[in-house]
Amino acid sequence: MSTSTQSNPGLAALRDALRRFAADRDWDKFHSPKNLASALAVESAELLEHFQWLTEGESAALPPSARAKVAEELADVLLYLIRLADRLDVDLLAAAHAKIARNAEKYPIEKARGSARKYNEL
Amino acid sequence: MSTSTQSNPGLAALRDALRRFAADRDWDKFHSPKNLASALAVESAELLEHFQWLTEGESAALPPSARAKVAEELADVLLYLIRLADRLDVDLLAAAHAKIARNAEKYPIEKARGSARKYNEL
Amino acid sequence: MSTSTQSNPGLAALRDALRRFAADRDWDKFHSPKNLASALAVESAELLEHFQWLTEGESAALPPSARAKVAEELADVLLYLIRLADRLDVDLLAAAHAKIARNAEKYPIEKARGSARKYNEL
Amino acid sequence: MSTSTQSNPGLAALRDALRRFAADRDWDKFHSPKNLASALAVESAELLEHFQWLTEGESAALPPSARAKVAEELADVLLYLIRLADRLDVDLLAAAHAKIARNAEKYPIEKARGSARKYNEL
Repeated sequence: MSTSTQSNPGLAALRDALRRFAADRDWDKFHSPKNLASALAVESAELLEHFQWLTEGESAALPPSARAKVAEELADVLLYLIRLADRLDVDLLAAAHAKIARNAEKYPIEKARGSARKYNEL
Repeated sequence: MSTSTQSNPGLAALRDALRRFAADRDWDKFHSPKNLASALAVESAELLEHFQWLTEGESAALPPSARAKVAEELADVLLYLIRLADRLDVDLLAAAHAKIARNAEKYPIEKARGSARKYNEL
Repeated sequence: MSTSTQSNPGLAALRDALRRFAADRDWDKFHSPKNLASALAVESAELLEHFQWLTEGESAALPPSARAKVAEELADVLLYLIRLADRLDVDLLAAAHAKIARNAEKYPIEKARGSARKYNEL
Repeated sequence: MSTSTQSNPGLAALRDALRRFAADRDWDKFHSPKNLASALAVESAELLEHFQWLTEGESAALPPSARAKVAEELADVLLYLIRLADRLDVDLLAAAHAKIARNAEKYPIEKARGSARKYNEL
């Protein structure tokens, strides 16, 4: 499949770099899926911390220094996500395409338009 | 740059699909970076929930039904991550490569080997 | 009710101290329930960070310096929780007693014994 | 100390109820601090989920049905927090009072007034 992680040069290169990074440091023993899922949640919260006291408008107009820090947190989330998917042998891109298709069924355009309600409350 | 999101067919296709999904449903008004960062943290926690009572060993040997649910949560995290990066105009892959380079400096192999301590405690 | 926050000297004293703290600093404008819920999630993740690479056994035998830091994170979570409940006019202790009663119905002893499954999977 | 968890009837009653609840169901084996910290982060995110697409104003004016669900999530957070503090033998109320005192030093009124900046950026 042309969009799979395996054949996607960007994600596969990151996955391989993370494998080498962990192997070089003997970190595989720490990288159980349970621990990586915790680390991913922690990084997501560090990302959220940058926005917690901002208004929505301010969050869309970050000054350059804040934006650079946020970009680094986004990277942390992506790296743990790739590492966790690798340890679980899940193809991230294939899973994402499947999820978009499911969401399109759960949130039909005519019902979901302009509403933030959950699919089971539409 | 060969690894940028822009030229990466997998991530760029997902980014574009998410743009259309939001535009079709008039959801851009909900998708401030602040709100998307909250949604990303929520999805990361839903992922973690699958592992919270498992041992590390169990987390590495999920039965197929649990693994399928976990793959769906991984997809949710990736989709919100791509959407948030898009709204902030951040190139995810470039940021991830830059972060790996920084981590290699913060965690030199000889100092970090076998240790889970933070870089400022090595 | 003898266990309500209002009549509970410990929680009511903290609630009042937090009210003064925010008023003195003109912080009420930042303390919407939405923002406080984000801050609570961020603090919970900072607490989790202390445990993410530990084994379960290590997490139950923290050295004194780590335990002191963890105690401070526990305090942060409690303080935001009290503040959020106050802004929503929710009686924390009454809600907690009601939840224990509901959990006792959802997890009958004979069915739940020794199992970490969710109530709808018992 | 008059505000300690031990002598505080509300929190001590909840702590004791949670001990019995876990013992009756043979759940102590699941309740390592590491696992409880994950559960606490997961519950905090479930709380946040109720607010993620709301404006700050909407979050301060919840309809009764949403407010009841939020109260239940607040209770979940408090219960895991009490349980985790119990397993770590931390006095929650004493830790909270100590933290307020530390915050008063980190955020002097004249410097912090009206600002959401972190203490090291004031």
